[in-house]
Amino acid sequence: MKNTFGQSLSLTLFGESHGEKIGAVLDGLAPGIDIDESFIAFRLSLRRPAGRISTSRREEDAFSIVSGVRDGKTTGTPLTLLIENRDTRSKDYEKTRSLARPGHADYTAFCKYHGFEDYRGGGHFSGRLTAPLVAAGAILLSALAGRGITIGTHIKRCGGVSDRDFGDLASDLAQLNRSEFAVLDEAAGEEMKNAVRAAAREGDSVGGLLESAITGMPAGVGEPWFDSFEGVLSHALFSIPAVKGVEFGDGFALAESRGSLANDPFRTEAGKIITATNHNGGINGGITNGMPILFRVAVKPTPSIYREQDTVDFFTNEEKKLLINGRHDPAIVHRARAVVDSVAALAAADMLALRYGTDWLGGEAL
Amino acid sequence: MKNTFGQSLSLTLFGESHGEKIGAVLDGLAPGIDIDESFIAFRLSLRRPAGRISTSRREEDAFSIVSGVRDGKTTGTPLTLLIENRDTRSKDYEKTRSLARPGHADYTAFCKYHGFEDYRGGGHFSGRLTAPLVAAGAILLSALAGRGITIGTHIKRCGGVSDRDFGDLASDLAQLNRSEFAVLDEAAGEEMKNAVRAAAREGDSVGGLLESAITGMPAGVGEPWFDSFEGVLSHALFSIPAVKGVEFGDGFALAESRGSLANDPFRTEAGKIITATNHNGGINGGITNGMPILFRVAVKPTPSIYREQDTVDFFTNEEKKLLINGRHDPAIVHRARAVVDSVAALAAADMLALRYGTDWLGGEAL
Amino acid sequence: MKNTFGQSLSLTLFGESHGEKIGAVLDGLAPGIDIDESFIAFRLSLRRPAGRISTSRREEDAFSIVSGVRDGKTTGTPLTLLIENRDTRSKDYEKTRSLARPGHADYTAFCKYHGFEDYRGGGHFSGRLTAPLVAAGAILLSALAGRGITIGTHIKRCGGVSDRDFGDLASDLAQLNRSEFAVLDEAAGEEMKNAVRAAAREGDSVGGLLESAITGMPAGVGEPWFDSFEGVLSHALFSIPAVKGVEFGDGFALAESRGSLANDPFRTEAGKIITATNHNGGINGGITNGMPILFRVAVKPTPSIYREQDTVDFFTNEEKKLLINGRHDPAIVHRARAVVDSVAALAAADMLALRYGTDWLGGEAL
Amino acid sequence: MKNTFGQSLSLTLFGESHGEKIGAVLDGLAPGIDIDESFIAFRLSLRRPAGRISTSRREEDAFSIVSGVRDGKTTGTPLTLLIENRDTRSKDYEKTRSLARPGHADYTAFCKYHGFEDYRGGGHFSGRLTAPLVAAGAILLSALAGRGITIGTHIKRCGGVSDRDFGDLASDLAQLNRSEFAVLDEAAGEEMKNAVRAAAREGDSVGGLLESAITGMPAGVGEPWFDSFEGVLSHALFSIPAVKGVEFGDGFALAESRGSLANDPFRTEAGKIITATNHNGGINGGITNGMPILFRVAVKPTPSIYREQDTVDFFTNEEKKLLINGRHDPAIVHRARAVVDSVAALAAADMLALRYGTDWLGGEAL
Repeated sequence: MKNTFGQSLSLTLFGESHGEKIGAVLDGLAPGIDIDESFIAFRLSLRRPAGRISTSRREEDAFSIVSGVRDGKTTGTPLTLLIENRDTRSKDYEKTRSLARPGHADYTAFCKYHGFEDYRGGGHFSGRLTAPLVAAGAILLSALAGRGITIGTHIKRCGGVSDRDFGDLASDLAQLNRSEFAVLDEAAGEEMKNAVRAAAREGDSVGGLLESAITGMPAGVGEPWFDSFEGVLSHALFSIPAVKGVEFGDGFALAESRGSLANDPFRTEAGKIITATNHNGGINGGITNGMPILFRVAVKPTPSIYREQDTVDFFTNEEKKLLINGRHDPAIVHRARAVVDSVAALAAADMLALRYGTDWLGGEAL
Repeated sequence: MKNTFGQSLSLTLFGESHGEKIGAVLDGLAPGIDIDESFIAFRLSLRRPAGRISTSRREEDAFSIVSGVRDGKTTGTPLTLLIENRDTRSKDYEKTRSLARPGHADYTAFCKYHGFEDYRGGGHFSGRLTAPLVAAGAILLSALAGRGITIGTHIKRCGGVSDRDFGDLASDLAQLNRSEFAVLDEAAGEEMKNAVRAAAREGDSVGGLLESAITGMPAGVGEPWFDSFEGVLSHALFSIPAVKGVEFGDGFALAESRGSLANDPFRTEAGKIITATNHNGGINGGITNGMPILFRVAVKPTPSIYREQDTVDFFTNEEKKLLINGRHDPAIVHRARAVVDSVAALAAADMLALRYGTDWLGGEAL
Repeated sequence: MKNTFGQSLSLTLFGESHGEKIGAVLDGLAPGIDIDESFIAFRLSLRRPAGRISTSRREEDAFSIVSGVRDGKTTGTPLTLLIENRDTRSKDYEKTRSLARPGHADYTAFCKYHGFEDYRGGGHFSGRLTAPLVAAGAILLSALAGRGITIGTHIKRCGGVSDRDFGDLASDLAQLNRSEFAVLDEAAGEEMKNAVRAAAREGDSVGGLLESAITGMPAGVGEPWFDSFEGVLSHALFSIPAVKGVEFGDGFALAESRGSLANDPFRTEAGKIITATNHNGGINGGITNGMPILFRVAVKPTPSIYREQDTVDFFTNEEKKLLINGRHDPAIVHRARAVVDSVAALAAADMLALRYGTDWLGGEAL
Repeated sequence: MKNTFGQSLSLTLFGESHGEKIGAVLDGLAPGIDIDESFIAFRLSLRRPAGRISTSRREEDAFSIVSGVRDGKTTGTPLTLLIENRDTRSKDYEKTRSLARPGHADYTAFCKYHGFEDYRGGGHFSGRLTAPLVAAGAILLSALAGRGITIGTHIKRCGGVSDRDFGDLASDLAQLNRSEFAVLDEAAGEEMKNAVRAAAREGDSVGGLLESAITGMPAGVGEPWFDSFEGVLSHALFSIPAVKGVEFGDGFALAESRGSLANDPFRTEAGKIITATNHNGGINGGITNGMPILFRVAVKPTPSIYREQDTVDFFTNEEKKLLINGRHDPAIVHRARAVVDSVAALAAADMLALRYGTDWLGGEAL
């Protein structure tokens, strides 16, 4: 499998930035899941370029579901989502076609596809492809919510500004999942936007750090080796363009810690076994322990910047200077949060379907 | 697939810490790969408990290859490695059988396997299982070396002490791959060992940070979505017990950076396209660009510590105090490096076999 | 994976008979494969209901390719084919919604999808879904032809009439691949059509036997166990609705044979090793031997017949009588031949991509 | 995956006829399945060469289970079975090493593995490898029986002699699963043996036809496309050496039938929906309908015969005469029945685990 993720529940992603349509096929969905088109549209709005800190490309993201749904519920057979591409300006890309944009996939696509790749607007590598991923994710997020599982993400760091730490997860996730700009501290959010705008004025871009939680996951999901919960989830997360780091629980900070501080002591609460702390992010030995799954994702700065850069023409192997035109985001971390939620929902839903069977996420039999 | 990794070239891992045998099946290996048993033994020695900073359990790791090799070369059919377990003291585990060791998989195994799990010595979750992983990895490391691909790892941080940064990768990897304790700066290595011993004297343990490089990878390997090089490699890395973070290139530091600093400008060197810097760790858009693959792995402190900890008896749901006996490592980061090399070799070899076919890593036809 | 087939090269099939669109995603295609839309249209015409022996439903099968192709060649990223559904008469199905049509999937769909299934026109189970399969197969058949590999199928038996045996495969396959009604003996073909019409006049339907050949397959493709060439190909063939038997070489006749008659002696021809006979259908030990791959597929009679049948209302568990309306084929074997070619192309192309790498079927680098 | 079968529950097969050990890893087994070693031994006895109609090679098939079992029950982690090879006479094979035995995999192995293959006794292609398959199958057969699912196979045809048709499946399967020579009609069985002995006296071998049933399968298992119950089961069946045909229900006879005869009318029995006939072998649209799964497998004559055959030396491309020595079976159909049961159990158990989750086949939680 290449552009497909998942074993029992799988998603296949297709399309190019300037192609006719982009979309996704979700297969292995339980029958009877409610399809809430307005929720899908809302989730799509969360990843859409917004305001002064995003590209001026208008992406309406009008989606249609052309298979797998009848009378507003999943049938259990493959669900296909399509989104049309409009407002594409392929001309912007013609003249720099063979100039590898630093930090982008132009050159690696050329190495892999030998010049046959669709280079316009990043082609199949474009962040545009995250739109169907988010739409499909919305369906899974709804289904998981029906089983008491909630996923949410905030921008922990952006432009040198920090959001506050997670507190009460129930209220924090509820707040984030209503927010266009996913921060817990509104003031920090405004500072972040200012920092992004400042970078944009300098023709530059910024990265950021996303922090996510999954609450309500049953204990006992994941495998000891290879298909550990961390392994499967990280596999999905590293598909997101610009993601260069993934950590669970205290993550890299654990490298500096001691066992006496890093271990999460067990105790009981209302007769249920929990851990007193959650340095391990809800996962022990690759398997969920019933505590919230906590993870962080590092997003690199958007590689498209408005400054002259050194590059090479990969048709001629000549060194060249490159000045990128087109409409680009000075930051994508605030948009990526919706994608992170979606791939987390995909990885979790697949592992749950493997564990509990294909009906688990579905509706009551008619 | 559960305890199996890889698509064209796959590894299946089996066994328990106190079972009769542990082992691995490598399937999809090209025919004609040389099997160097002394190199396998050497690699096994690198993960074996050593000196005063490791468990006193003697692990001889005498391995045998019972299928897939004829006259010292792979046949192309499944290669099976077996390692016998000796010097096991299962009694150590009986009395604390239902007391969940904090930071360990005892409780999650119970949730998943309902009490049928082999709890002795961590069972299938034991770091002991990394022995066949390292042995299998040795075969792949040899085969990759035959194609000009080298993998190596150093302990970048341990016990608050840093090793020097990577410099010339050819000589650094050569040095590391000869070293029992994988540091580039011997003095830093001694400090690290002292820090580990100090923690051990306090009944505590330490974590650490491993930094790895893969040189010689062809450009054009990996997929745009889901099976990105980062996604596949991270999936394998997060299988290693105690790994809680993975980053590529500058990784989490990129969250704090700007596009103008994070992009790697292209240039030519001896007619070949390279990047002037390598903040992206040799991967753009999920696909290798011909530069060294750089990644770091966070290893949490060994959860087995000699201090009283709070826990719960998961048979009775009673809160209890736990004092762990047995023989345990105060650090495993220095042993984990051999495992990191092995799973990196597995992920890389699988992606190469998918890209170039099943003969690519093999010997000249007889 | 569920509605997906293939490991390195995969096809995902989606849609329902009366849904908005049906289609397929082909992923893992080599870059640079020529897309000949008129050839795709021709192949689609071969499976389209034709003349007096097929349903009167008009299926125009106008397809569009919305991703994965640029300037008439594959890009190497997922290729998505869409076909719109028109001329659907869902009303035909409402009144018999819960009456299980004998020989159909209505009842099994209900058991699996609990009533959420799209029951109109067979939904996702409909033979209509073979249209995108045939379109995708056309792309693969072209690509395989570019590597000297030809696939063709004739109707060996239908309505009690036999076509002549395969003779010279080069000319026979060429003839079949031009023919709308795939027989080698035109007179036998006319007799078959008469037999089908006779059955139709009685409100009945007939089955048939398809015989196929793949020429030009390199020796050495397939795996000893599980992913044998026969295993992988049969897996694909049994997906075709109505297929109930698959045999390779002499197949079931070998059960009656003796080793002295069934073995294919080796000899040389123009310096190349061949077999003097081909009772084993070009496969020994699951692996191709360079001789033509020969296989036969049994197609059951169309279950939709115009006679009263006994059935059960699966909503109420009441026994009922059923008289099917709608437009149905009295035979599908003549249409299924295009589907057999397509799934054979898919299975072969996937095994070749696994064996020789992802570029093998593609065009010369630009 | 190559020598691995299954998605949620998988089996990996390894070893060579004259290697040190052969074996299998079963992964994804539910925890708490009882391991009955005497039942495994009994099943192994059913595939062992027996009496005057099998090879004189003594195969003791002493197996050991080295992982995945504790206190006689599966743990839920990979179960590894090992069988030692003894009584091997590799010398028999040295002198004919490069002479392709007609009907065998010698030449195709050479094409695939370039001479590195283990050629002794058929190497990895040997029927010997079915021993671990049968042992693993025994575990699955027990587990399925615990859920009311029974699998059994009889020799329907051998040496021109027919066994009687299936009658009452409950008693027929019970009888077959006690029998060493799996026929329902003992007299027919004696005739079959005589026919085999007659062929053996002529230095020849015979094929045969196996007919199998699976009773107790829940309705609703299998997928509409690609992973149809037929597709998955045939994939497994065609892995068995010498299998050249697979059919479900009336199979190839359906090609000669009419819809009015081939459709299975529905009716109710004790409030349960059943079909009045079972021409479709318990499967509609790729999904089980709750009726017995019926299938037949064609087994070709053993290719090892004691007659001079034409062949080619594939090292030199010279035409040669070959007279095979060694100890070989004049028929294997009576031994293959145990293998058919095993791979059917594997395919069924995997599809059940995918459908109902990984605990479904397991024991009550401790």
